[in-house]
Amino acid sequence: MLCLVGCALTLSAQTWIWYPGDYELWLGNEMNNRRTERGAFFPPFWKMDSHYVLVEFSKALDLKSAENIDIAVEGRYNVKLDGKLLYGQPSTLLLPAGKHQLNIKVYNTATVPALFVKGTTVNSDATWRVTFEDKEWIDESGKASDTSATHYAQAGHWNFNEANLTPSNFRLPTKQQQPVKTEPVAGGGQLLDFGKETFGTICLDNLRGEGNICLYYGESREEALDTLYCETLDRLSASHPTPLSTKAFRYVYLTASGTAAYDSAYMLYEYMPETYLGSFRSNDEELNRIWDVGAYTMHLTTREFFIDGIKRDRWVWSGDAIQSYLMNYYLFFDNDAVKRTIWLLRGKDPVTSHTNTIMDYTFYWFLSIYDYYLYSGDVDFIRQLYPRMQTLMAYVLGRTNADGMVEGLAGDWVFVDWADGYLDKKGELSFEQVLFCKSLETMSLCSQLAGDQQGAKQYADLAASLRAKLIPLFWDPQQQALVHNRIGGKQSRTVTRYANMFAVFYGYLDADKQQAIKESVLYNDSILKITTPYMRFYELEALCALGEQTRVMQEMKAYWGGMLRQGATTFWEKYNPTDRGREHLAMYGRPYGKSLCHAWGASPLYLLGKYYLGVRPLKAGYEEFAVTPVLGGLKWMEGDVPTPQGKIHVYMDGRTIKASTDGGSGYLYFQSKKKQPKVSGGVAENLGQGAFRVKMTGGEVTVRY
Amino acid sequence: MLCLVGCALTLSAQTWIWYPGDYELWLGNEMNNRRTERGAFFPPFWKMDSHYVLVEFSKALDLKSAENIDIAVEGRYNVKLDGKLLYGQPSTLLLPAGKHQLNIKVYNTATVPALFVKGTTVNSDATWRVTFEDKEWIDESGKASDTSATHYAQAGHWNFNEANLTPSNFRLPTKQQQPVKTEPVAGGGQLLDFGKETFGTICLDNLRGEGNICLYYGESREEALDTLYCETLDRLSASHPTPLSTKAFRYVYLTASGTAAYDSAYMLYEYMPETYLGSFRSNDEELNRIWDVGAYTMHLTTREFFIDGIKRDRWVWSGDAIQSYLMNYYLFFDNDAVKRTIWLLRGKDPVTSHTNTIMDYTFYWFLSIYDYYLYSGDVDFIRQLYPRMQTLMAYVLGRTNADGMVEGLAGDWVFVDWADGYLDKKGELSFEQVLFCKSLETMSLCSQLAGDQQGAKQYADLAASLRAKLIPLFWDPQQQALVHNRIGGKQSRTVTRYANMFAVFYGYLDADKQQAIKESVLYNDSILKITTPYMRFYELEALCALGEQTRVMQEMKAYWGGMLRQGATTFWEKYNPTDRGREHLAMYGRPYGKSLCHAWGASPLYLLGKYYLGVRPLKAGYEEFAVTPVLGGLKWMEGDVPTPQGKIHVYMDGRTIKASTDGGSGYLYFQSKKKQPKVSGGVAENLGQGAFRVKMTGGEVTVRY
Repeated sequence: MLCLVGCALTLSAQTWIWYPGDYELWLGNEMNNRRTERGAFFPPFWKMDSHYVLVEFSKALDLKSAENIDIAVEGRYNVKLDGKLLYGQPSTLLLPAGKHQLNIKVYNTATVPALFVKGTTVNSDATWRVTFEDKEWIDESGKASDTSATHYAQAGHWNFNEANLTPSNFRLPTKQQQPVKTEPVAGGGQLLDFGKETFGTICLDNLRGEGNICLYYGESREEALDTLYCETLDRLSASHPTPLSTKAFRYVYLTASGTAAYDSAYMLYEYMPETYLGSFRSNDEELNRIWDVGAYTMHLTTREFFIDGIKRDRWVWSGDAIQSYLMNYYLFFDNDAVKRTIWLLRGKDPVTSHTNTIMDYTFYWFLSIYDYYLYSGDVDFIRQLYPRMQTLMAYVLGRTNADGMVEGLAGDWVFVDWADGYLDKKGELSFEQVLFCKSLETMSLCSQLAGDQQGAKQYADLAASLRAKLIPLFWDPQQQALVHNRIGGKQSRTVTRYANMFAVFYGYLDADKQQAIKESVLYNDSILKITTPYMRFYELEALCALGEQTRVMQEMKAYWGGMLRQGATTFWEKYNPTDRGREHLAMYGRPYGKSLCHAWGASPLYLLGKYYLGVRPLKAGYEEFAVTPVLGGLKWMEGDVPTPQGKIHVYMDGRTIKASTDGGSGYLYFQSKKKQPKVSGGVAENLGQGAFRVKMTGGEVTVRY
Repeated sequence: MLCLVGCALTLSAQTWIWYPGDYELWLGNEMNNRRTERGAFFPPFWKMDSHYVLVEFSKALDLKSAENIDIAVEGRYNVKLDGKLLYGQPSTLLLPAGKHQLNIKVYNTATVPALFVKGTTVNSDATWRVTFEDKEWIDESGKASDTSATHYAQAGHWNFNEANLTPSNFRLPTKQQQPVKTEPVAGGGQLLDFGKETFGTICLDNLRGEGNICLYYGESREEALDTLYCETLDRLSASHPTPLSTKAFRYVYLTASGTAAYDSAYMLYEYMPETYLGSFRSNDEELNRIWDVGAYTMHLTTREFFIDGIKRDRWVWSGDAIQSYLMNYYLFFDNDAVKRTIWLLRGKDPVTSHTNTIMDYTFYWFLSIYDYYLYSGDVDFIRQLYPRMQTLMAYVLGRTNADGMVEGLAGDWVFVDWADGYLDKKGELSFEQVLFCKSLETMSLCSQLAGDQQGAKQYADLAASLRAKLIPLFWDPQQQALVHNRIGGKQSRTVTRYANMFAVFYGYLDADKQQAIKESVLYNDSILKITTPYMRFYELEALCALGEQTRVMQEMKAYWGGMLRQGATTFWEKYNPTDRGREHLAMYGRPYGKSLCHAWGASPLYLLGKYYLGVRPLKAGYEEFAVTPVLGGLKWMEGDVPTPQGKIHVYMDGRTIKASTDGGSGYLYFQSKKKQPKVSGGVAENLGQGAFRVKMTGGEVTVRY
């Protein structure tokens, strides 16, 4: 098997290239179609797009001297030099000195048309152009056509930097792991325990005899032993074994029929190579364990793409992915993984449904692009993606009602959250309008980055118009909250947390309303409680944005610590502290339907990095940043946050803050009761009311506050 | 190799099914990517769409008794009965009696997801539904979603009626053929002559030694022997031979290097099995030979799809295809071939360019659908295709100018014809507006067939508005003709034949203008002459529509007879009678660039069937027809024209007409100087001015006129 280290931000001199987004779709289809449910293939229910089967790569050359290039291609291809077709499918070519035009056209249906060129100065990389229709017809006279309107994109690539590292052969690496415990089961068979949630394939040494080995996988011991209801299983013929596919499990229960037998079982752990660039440590060992288990949860769900959970869907979901991206910025900073996932989620035109069929997931897709730009500063990606942003937004705008607002039409899944109670999905949900408004604002920003001034104005106007309606239409002065929805133009009485918490951290409310919401909604126990880590992510973020780190710390320890006390080795899809026993395992009406390793379960990674270590970008790509550490009840904490320039390191205890950066510039913000806190490595600037800041430009800043 | 007889209008009890149009795209991509030019791969320059990689087939069942079905699938799949997923990928299934819902979901990237089900009453066929996104999500409670807005299509199919006849393995059948002559060539090598234009692969008996065999193919002897300029060639390693691909040729020149040698060479002739349902014979042996050579030309270019020519492009071009369809209705009546080609030409949304990048070819695509409906009566196909008709027309309407007319924008190829002289492509061409207008009329008709009343009105209004502009804007009273174009709102002085001849047979002109055009344009030698059989098709059709069969007969004999006298064994892409010697072979600035077997060369098939035998449908699917035989200078003629009900047979000489039909009803129309022509098998109805008609309902009608 081929091992490829997915290190972010490396660009080799030559790399396999393709039509941007196409490899991502192809690989994503492979991945999204690996789900099984009790031995049955379980593919997605949304449209799966695929790659352009015929594309043309081209490069304008200006060579000081002649040079040889090697050409490797996935697909059938031709090579044109200065418009002249060369014989056959040449694998090497001598390019003459001077100005020349090199065009290579590739056809491939089964896998993605891809090209690798290696020369002295001529190498395939993102500077190559690629198109899916060159429109280069030839006139009767032999004269070629005008191609001024042909749409060329910059080639897409990842890190396949050698000719033999063909994109279609990409596989995640594996390593052998042994069960920590093997026990016989009464009535036959044996139960393997790998000690913690894991992912890979089971291998059986010296498989022999006639009959089947049945493998029942469990994220819990209960699930593995429940042969009738476990979510995933395999049946392996001992005499004609077929390769087993990857599964998620901690436990595996194996039974044998007939004379089928094996000596021992182990696993091949399959993983995405990632470097843990972010870190967090504190005086609180439970919190440290929460961070570690969160990081492991993130690592298991960071695969070819950011997926939801490793046992059940193994699909890419937009609402899940945006949280993975945010956590990723505080752990791996793997930009390629973010870009791959964004391409896959978008698919191709025409748009025939919301992203993953879910209205809110369409909006998260837009929002995630803003986040990516802010953290990475990668404007090239925005420009490459912008046409598909336009067409998706056109789809949304084509489905707005007379008031310019979105409501669920036939075929739209209005999701919001898995709630333990009734959530009305009818009419205009305030939550969806808030996401829609922020999406329009994102479109306006990206229009500017893509140089579309007209679009920028159009989207800004739409955003302003929608934002102006939010308070008049949804704010209930009596309840001091945004209500859940409007039906037929009539405000409902129901208040839920969703719109209110997003409005807080989007800054859509004035200071009075922000503060009001804290008591009227966020700390109000009569409002429907959130029982998914998914929405707890935003709930706790809203509280952090309101300066409630101490309270959030208690919540984190109660909620995520609660899962740990239930024996979690990774974080779950859903956790209701009031559940008991096997209730923790059930979901979707199935006894083991719940995923026990779900990316959205790992949000403390993000909260601790952004609101405790306090590191966040203010300008795209951390060109300017803010470090605002808050102990939130801890005695001390210390950690790293990755940035495009390296890392920002923060240490804080009750008296001291230390912060350093590998690049970029920003300020360390802190509160102090002292008139002149002692600072080394910088100068404290008094902002009034006990607030200070110190400019960070490199080297360590130490503050005695 | 697998042999499949492409017999039209057969539908078996069970057949392989797929998403409509998808197999056609996949197979079309395979075919369009078989072109080579001097050993280099030469794919198209337009966007190649591909199949949906994940589709779901479904069928609502109501079974009197339980039954077993066999399931064969191309792709990875699952089976759901009444919403419950079955284990693995079952190849048989016992369906219980009663009402049940069967769903089968298939994933396949390399080839098209396809399904074959065979039971007693449950069989895969066009009644199955298929979708590329079922939107069947599952709620937290396990409850499935509302899929009321999911778009389902009726499954596509062809004639793969056995489980082992998998669509992806389709190959045209072949048979061995020997050269009629083999001659040594001075300087080495030998020249094979297969006696006439043909298509297939060369086989070498007892190939041995070290070195290469080079194969130079020629539609002419000159081309095969010109190793530097022949259009297609192969280089075969004697010790490591790879399979040769199909080529078009009459001659093959073989040379050997090193010790490479073989005993003898023959060919595998590759062909589409077609039945010649149409026929034509007359007293004129040259005309009979024109019909025969036309039929052979059509047969060679009727392959997986209707292609342009067998040597060079081997592509599907819309302008070429519409003529093939029309000829096909008088020869093979292969509806499947028409439908496959229409699907392939349309591709998928989004539309990013005109069909084949050519503006006129977009319009021919619309027009061909009207023709197909008229000849076949197949309203199901119109309904299936209608959404893609709408989006292509939306593309066109999005590119009209302020006057609602089309003109070539950047990236549009305004083709019209290969002309031996300057053809202005700028501004509003009258020719393009005439095609556009007819396309809008076709849209209006198809909207009605598809039940879209609003669309029907919208397109009818647009058509009427455009049609009202044609005469005021393009008619030049002085020249008594439609001028070629308008630039900047100003009528040009140039007159060409194109718009004028189309306006004639579309009936866009009043009787005076129709007659005027005959002299001012069609018989006016100062107007740029047409030198392609492509546009001669329409020129002669216009003359026939004006009752000029006698003159057209002379033209046919001069033009197509002229090619025969030049040694043609199939008809050519272009023929200018004034060319001499090798000039007949050259085109596109290349000495053998011209295709000597080009579908559009075979138009006498159509003209003789429609305007001499005089058979044409008046209502869709020949529900009502007209037979209006015209000798046009012949002493006698006799022939068959296929219809959905069988055939219409016509015999005519100077005194007698005999006509019979296998089904449908219509009238035999004829002129007679007698007051009461003698009729058996029917009754003559006097229409005045020497015109009569006899109702045909079955049996033979004989008229002594």
